[in-house]
Amino acid sequence: MKQFSVAMLGYGIAGKAFARILNQTHDEIMEKTGYDVKVVAITTGSRGSLYCMDGIDLAEATRQLEEDGHFDVNSTIYSTMSSMEVVETVDYDAVLELTPLNIETGLPAADHIRGALNRGKHAVSANKGPLAWYYRELRDLAKEKGVCFFYETTVMAGTPVFNMADNCLQYCKIDKIEGIFNATTNYILKEMAKGVPYEEILKAGREQGFMEADTSMDTKGWDATAKLTVLLNVLMDAGITPDMIDRTGIEEVTLEDIEAAKSRGNVIKLMCRGTIDENGNVIGKVAPEEIPATDVFADENLVAVVSLYTDLMGKLTMLQYGLETTQTGYGVFIDTVRILDNLK
Amino acid sequence: MKQFSVAMLGYGIAGKAFARILNQTHDEIMEKTGYDVKVVAITTGSRGSLYCMDGIDLAEATRQLEEDGHFDVNSTIYSTMSSMEVVETVDYDAVLELTPLNIETGLPAADHIRGALNRGKHAVSANKGPLAWYYRELRDLAKEKGVCFFYETTVMAGTPVFNMADNCLQYCKIDKIEGIFNATTNYILKEMAKGVPYEEILKAGREQGFMEADTSMDTKGWDATAKLTVLLNVLMDAGITPDMIDRTGIEEVTLEDIEAAKSRGNVIKLMCRGTIDENGNVIGKVAPEEIPATDVFADENLVAVVSLYTDLMGKLTMLQYGLETTQTGYGVFIDTVRILDNLK
Repeated sequence: MKQFSVAMLGYGIAGKAFARILNQTHDEIMEKTGYDVKVVAITTGSRGSLYCMDGIDLAEATRQLEEDGHFDVNSTIYSTMSSMEVVETVDYDAVLELTPLNIETGLPAADHIRGALNRGKHAVSANKGPLAWYYRELRDLAKEKGVCFFYETTVMAGTPVFNMADNCLQYCKIDKIEGIFNATTNYILKEMAKGVPYEEILKAGREQGFMEADTSMDTKGWDATAKLTVLLNVLMDAGITPDMIDRTGIEEVTLEDIEAAKSRGNVIKLMCRGTIDENGNVIGKVAPEEIPATDVFADENLVAVVSLYTDLMGKLTMLQYGLETTQTGYGVFIDTVRILDNLK
Repeated sequence: MKQFSVAMLGYGIAGKAFARILNQTHDEIMEKTGYDVKVVAITTGSRGSLYCMDGIDLAEATRQLEEDGHFDVNSTIYSTMSSMEVVETVDYDAVLELTPLNIETGLPAADHIRGALNRGKHAVSANKGPLAWYYRELRDLAKEKGVCFFYETTVMAGTPVFNMADNCLQYCKIDKIEGIFNATTNYILKEMAKGVPYEEILKAGREQGFMEADTSMDTKGWDATAKLTVLLNVLMDAGITPDMIDRTGIEEVTLEDIEAAKSRGNVIKLMCRGTIDENGNVIGKVAPEEIPATDVFADENLVAVVSLYTDLMGKLTMLQYGLETTQTGYGVFIDTVRILDNLK
């Protein structure tokens, strides 16, 4: 029985959901892979850190944050290590980058991943920043060091976009991508169409836990833009950054626009599109668009959707339903499992 | 450079599409995996067989069947071997079972696969019969012999249902499956709703090449039933056979039914459903149902759709578009690629 040691940078929604799934599947993983997966370090921005090479009790860590708002400073495993100190000094096998997104720079998340890869450690990112700003560099570094670098959660949570493309669309070339990737604006537009006042929409979204206190990253289209950038970089080797995407948010969309669309049998969605232009360059666009109400993309219940256009397998569409945080945790979890599969 | 030898039983739509994709990707596969994939035997029911351990020219094989209707009996690689003789005597690495479906018994396809597995050879089945009737036995035999047994094409052509579940939904439990799996009835119901006379629908479907001369397997619900059986056996370990599915075809669906559904904002689809009953048994049902016209499953353009309900990843839906035969070929192709990946 070999220990597989994981360092978690950040312990928010994705981290706690990952911990829950890992606790639930730990013994099954051990039986299937022979690896005893243990989390040996957890860092947070302002709630302390934990460090224990024998493995941290994840249920207890979650309890401390939820009940006390801070890790127990009197615990023997309490630590004041920063994320970067963990990255550079702890003897982990894989780092999970779960810190908050900085969409304008991708930092310090990219530094964490670069630091881990440089030490020959595997890396998982739920943070879109490093992929949107530094994808090629990090991909090549991981390859050079012979380690894994996975990032399923960055687009559509645990819906297996990247894992599916890697395993199930081998030797296909993808030349077009369409999708709706931002759950918050999709929800806002849907509720606006029902006539719900804007403030009530935000209140309900926050109560359900999937909407940020500040929704401007969503309504200005930045979140969707970051996700489209990641998809185009990974699946179409675009080599682009978010500032190169033609971006329009939903802030200018009025109730009148929505009503007018409805009268034409349409709905308004924040569509993301990536194609190849006549010069062979990959170009991306994020903007509100009218689409037919009967279109799959218009489905009221869906959270996100992606269509991939391939040469050998035609068009393939995947839909994400439900805003359960477990899906976010599963994205991080399956990336960790993929690393174990690669060790065999 | 090592040769990987493939024996193809059957050379119809799926076989020819597989051959086309293999020709297109052969060099890239060699570069990526180090294997020189060659087809060393092809059998047909009444158009002769080919056998050459140095590899058959697939473009020429396709040309002979399309232009001459028979393999060239004067060719030095012409053979009169039957499928079973190839299975039992040829020195191949993997067999591709592409013979016509016998839905009532799964034979002789299951015998071909059993024969190959017993010799310690890998097997790919595009034929639903063996999966619907002998899944557990063949799965266990492959495991015992330490070889691969894949069957992506049996449900939704190359849409990666099984590959995706194997790789991307690890440690998830699936407790419900819903879908529309039969393209022919989906097309018939859609055209009926448009008011197209039944005979014209059949004529157009046959001209487009996806509809059989005899559509009774489709309209009686047998094809959908076989596919649902395969899904439930593989993804929910049901251990059932097609005769255990509660089956109703679309033969009793009238234009009046379709109009009445339309007046309620609904459409009629041949729905396939698998669930777990109160005794813990997996049960399946295939029957025409009214569903809302705004539902994703009602999309006019889709060919097939599946929703998987999981414990860790919620609900995941995949849509298949287009009736291109290349998708069928890709299912066989990706299964072959998975075998190569397992050899590494």
